Amino acid sequence: MNTLTRRDFVIGSTALGLVMAVRPGLAANSDRAPLYAEVERRHDESVQRLQDWIRNPTIAAEGRNLEEGCSHMMRLLGEAGFQRVERMPTDGVPGVFATLDAGATRTLGVYFMYDVKQANPDEWSSPPWEARFIDMPELGSAIMGRGATNQKGPQSAFLAALHAFKATGRKLPVNLVLVAEGEEEIGSPNFHQVVRSPEVAARLATTEGVFMPFPSQGLDGNITINLGAKGIVELELVSSGERWGRGPGKDVHSSLRAMLDSPSLHLVQALNSLVTPEGTPAIDGLMDRVRPLSAADHALLDTAAGRLDEASYKRAYSIQRFAQDADFRQALENLVSRPTVNIEGLVGGYTGPGGMTVLPTRATAKLDLRLVPDMTFDDTIAKLKAHLERRGFGDIEVKVGGGYDPTTTHADSRLIQSQVAVYRAAGIEPILWPRLAGSWPGYLFTGAPLNLPAGHFGLGHGARAHAPDEYYLIESRNPELSGYDAAVKSYVDYLFALA
Amino acid sequence: MNTLTRRDFVIGSTALGLVMAVRPGLAANSDRAPLYAEVERRHDESVQRLQDWIRNPTIAAEGRNLEEGCSHMMRLLGEAGFQRVERMPTDGVPGVFATLDAGATRTLGVYFMYDVKQANPDEWSSPPWEARFIDMPELGSAIMGRGATNQKGPQSAFLAALHAFKATGRKLPVNLVLVAEGEEEIGSPNFHQVVRSPEVAARLATTEGVFMPFPSQGLDGNITINLGAKGIVELELVSSGERWGRGPGKDVHSSLRAMLDSPSLHLVQALNSLVTPEGTPAIDGLMDRVRPLSAADHALLDTAAGRLDEASYKRAYSIQRFAQDADFRQALENLVSRPTVNIEGLVGGYTGPGGMTVLPTRATAKLDLRLVPDMTFDDTIAKLKAHLERRGFGDIEVKVGGGYDPTTTHADSRLIQSQVAVYRAAGIEPILWPRLAGSWPGYLFTGAPLNLPAGHFGLGHGARAHAPDEYYLIESRNPELSGYDAAVKSYVDYLFALA
Repeated sequence: MNTLTRRDFVIGSTALGLVMAVRPGLAANSDRAPLYAEVERRHDESVQRLQDWIRNPTIAAEGRNLEEGCSHMMRLLGEAGFQRVERMPTDGVPGVFATLDAGATRTLGVYFMYDVKQANPDEWSSPPWEARFIDMPELGSAIMGRGATNQKGPQSAFLAALHAFKATGRKLPVNLVLVAEGEEEIGSPNFHQVVRSPEVAARLATTEGVFMPFPSQGLDGNITINLGAKGIVELELVSSGERWGRGPGKDVHSSLRAMLDSPSLHLVQALNSLVTPEGTPAIDGLMDRVRPLSAADHALLDTAAGRLDEASYKRAYSIQRFAQDADFRQALENLVSRPTVNIEGLVGGYTGPGGMTVLPTRATAKLDLRLVPDMTFDDTIAKLKAHLERRGFGDIEVKVGGGYDPTTTHADSRLIQSQVAVYRAAGIEPILWPRLAGSWPGYLFTGAPLNLPAGHFGLGHGARAHAPDEYYLIESRNPELSGYDAAVKSYVDYLFALA
Repeated sequence: MNTLTRRDFVIGSTALGLVMAVRPGLAANSDRAPLYAEVERRHDESVQRLQDWIRNPTIAAEGRNLEEGCSHMMRLLGEAGFQRVERMPTDGVPGVFATLDAGATRTLGVYFMYDVKQANPDEWSSPPWEARFIDMPELGSAIMGRGATNQKGPQSAFLAALHAFKATGRKLPVNLVLVAEGEEEIGSPNFHQVVRSPEVAARLATTEGVFMPFPSQGLDGNITINLGAKGIVELELVSSGERWGRGPGKDVHSSLRAMLDSPSLHLVQALNSLVTPEGTPAIDGLMDRVRPLSAADHALLDTAAGRLDEASYKRAYSIQRFAQDADFRQALENLVSRPTVNIEGLVGGYTGPGGMTVLPTRATAKLDLRLVPDMTFDDTIAKLKAHLERRGFGDIEVKVGGGYDPTTTHADSRLIQSQVAVYRAAGIEPILWPRLAGSWPGYLFTGAPLNLPAGHFGLGHGARAHAPDEYYLIESRNPELSGYDAAVKSYVDYLFALA
């Protein structure tokens, strides 16, 4: 049903249609030649390490392989050169805290996740837990499996860079402080317990910021750097006869609708109250905290709007018209600046083929609300509940699944400027984008008390995260895309650039 | 998900809580003694015939066993004494037309269906296609299988009555004209082609009315006679980005909600427009054709409201309050007199556990609209479409699944009065009820041009139609309930009563 991937989104929303198509290639640097050679020499070993990792999946939603996945993660970090690797208990799946002291001046924070999304093998053309090599037309040879691109591929590439340093006896140009979790795919419900534990917070506070290895290249080879991300609240609204005290207490024959209220209709009416007829959020007070875009943000949007191709953009998502008939520039501005109330899914009563004459006792709407600065996760939930209560929907259960506050990272931070430098050296002019419309737990780093820069980085390409046939490109036949070794080398370069 | 059965409904809505609990028993009639004896003698053979029928299921929704089911139906009718048995081709599954000329003065119409609802064997405690004997606590020995009570059990009991006449060399006291279909469970989309074919219509026009064998006894042994039924339109409303020309043309990442419209929200807004905040139908012009209840209807309701037990009624459906806080008498009146717009199901976007950050391109609401006289199926659909068009929802697809006009049958018809007489002779005072709030294709008989009485009849008990573990009681250990032979004898009595 949902064929979208996180990568598709990044490609489509920000990099699609760029006119430039400069071939990536790493800047020559004789100093790094032995490291690069080591990366190439250890190619098979590194790829094997990635395959082994995919074959040992941790799935928080299913409670699968939690301790084993944590141990595996810890072993990988130790082997890559982290001197200290610690299991961090939480109220849920354990996290990991690791440090690599290279005696360097600067320290880089790193975010890893060791869990993956569920996978239904029936939907895959190659078994999701076997990590086979698959030839992809117009791309090259890729490893296909759950977690290949999200996040084991790029994370293994970063670890491969560390192995190159270790094998050549070179010290890292920066120290590393790494935090990992095993619950990202269920919304990181306990990761704050890792990040905010006193010693971890103290060590993170010494970093230049926190980065997450990422297969940043879209299909055209281009790259966007996001200077923050929207926050999110994922939740379910559940209307039931039992809680409402109206309608049937169990599913009954639909003819009884004539004498009984409908919890499904009650839900529909509640949903209808959350937005204006035009679809703008109408939750009481929700817009009060929306901070307008800055002049700098507008300038970035002007640049991006000039470089992005509206037609390709629309084609990628089968878009005929933007909401409220906005033009492209306005649509891009809306994307980065507006909070949203989105219906992810509706499920109630009979959902099979055809009809079934039933008056259901229960209906659920799955929503996500995207937040912009200075909205917060907690305040948004409180306002939603107050709104429902005030409008006669106080009985509707608000089941919060998870979410994050918005994050913001300044373009002039060393973390971001080093990314720009490495991409430029690879012949790619990245697009700076005010704010990813998607969300990630970066708020734990960018928010108080750490107030660090945070973002994604890495050459390389993969796609279909959360979808069947997820892959990560290993041997590229496409001149616009980096293969595995080039991705590994980009992490080598990033460490030098940060230093 | 839907554990309600058609029988549960009839039990609960009309017969529940009756104070009287007279033990059923057939009136002695020496003339019929040889017939009754034959019924008992042939018990095993008749039950075996029912089991064989269940083991050969026809499922229209799955295209399963259509021709075989039709042939099976025809053979059963021929063996029971119908002299003429004809396959009636339609645009879908074939129907059957059969006549039994007994040289009698009066003729009775009979309605059969030979198809059954789908069944998922995993949900059954006894395999649905094996028709095993199961001991039911407080009931007795029952046959469990799909179609056991809906409709093969009662239909086989009626055929067993015909076998008793045939075996004893007795002529039937009435002639029979029978029509059968194999698509009832998908809303009888082609049955009108059988009923309205000239010769069939001409033969049906000579009948006293059309009856459908039915296991009429609720768990307390009581029986309701419905003097008509509401009509129904079952349909899906489908909102999609493609048809709307707004929103995404495929499922995309939910962050894009900030620049794209939501087809799911569009559906929610359309649904919201179909009813008042109180839940009353608000489709433009829909109420214009609602005929008020007659004084006679009100009198029947007064009687029924006095005999039914509100507390048991509420308990049966876990009801805390009736819609619009109606009292019991008003709720019963609403049940028989009000049209409804009911949401059977909602399905759109991500419907699995937890959330999935997707902006879906498509959402569907499954609705049923119940109709009272003088509303019609066609007029209701036209008004719904006009309403949607007028309110800006003209792009939403209206996929009509099926339905019927309402039906009405007068209490003083011979068809009904004969039922009352047989039930009374069995010691049961039936409740006359203005209109079943459910629906069946009786409109083909009660509507123009035939304008015949039509209804259900039969002693016997079964339950869980459309649900797992459907059963039909064979050997009753419950003094309030008739077993198989008593049901067969009730059909013998009905034929005599009609004559």
